[in-house]
Amino acid sequence: MPSSRARSTPPSAAPARRSPCPVACFLDLLGDRWTLLVVRDLLLGRSRFKEFVASPEGIPTNILSERLRRLTEQGVVEQIESSPGSKHLAYRLTRRGQALRPVLESMRAWGLKHLRGTRAALEE
Amino acid sequence: MPSSRARSTPPSAAPARRSPCPVACFLDLLGDRWTLLVVRDLLLGRSRFKEFVASPEGIPTNILSERLRRLTEQGVVEQIESSPGSKHLAYRLTRRGQALRPVLESMRAWGLKHLRGTRAALEE
Repeated sequence: MPSSRARSTPPSAAPARRSPCPVACFLDLLGDRWTLLVVRDLLLGRSRFKEFVASPEGIPTNILSERLRRLTEQGVVEQIESSPGSKHLAYRLTRRGQALRPVLESMRAWGLKHLRGTRAALEE
Repeated sequence: MPSSRARSTPPSAAPARRSPCPVACFLDLLGDRWTLLVVRDLLLGRSRFKEFVASPEGIPTNILSERLRRLTEQGVVEQIESSPGSKHLAYRLTRRGQALRPVLESMRAWGLKHLRGTRAALEE
């Protein structure tokens, strides 16, 4: 990640935009099979790399590393110490990331209603 | 997925599920950069192949064909005649497909708020 990026500027590392449509731009950043699962895990309170790896979908570690890097660059996730003074890193959602909750909730609602045999872990 | 499938069973052509999580299963079906743009276009009233191709993101025709086939197999989209007696085919959302509207709306809301320079075409 290159250096100084102004604090409130939308992130630069995003892929080129295909159009100004907010749905298209959303998908440019988050439209794949894995990225929103990491966001789901963060919403569920998981914060450590090994916790994401332990999720039932079995995200490959190289994909996870790349997605965490991109989400951090995009200001959706930030790195924290896993506990005060710990060497271990953890991750949490920024406000921008927490604002993805309604998207996940609407996907969950659709899945529960329209895809048989699904069950939700995210209760709130 | 093995044989006999009852009529009201969710469609077969879906990729293997990674977990029973409804968000993961949603992404198994719809998690990529293009599929939900086709759903967006259908929600905006577009119905013809050439209309989808004309959208500003410029979906490649081979991807579009494949996504329309998958969405049809999954019961999200159905084929119709573009006008009575016409040879031309068109597409429309099934009820299952129309039920994706809240997902698109939540993505649009997030994009408009958090991604600079986006603007919405979907007004309702």
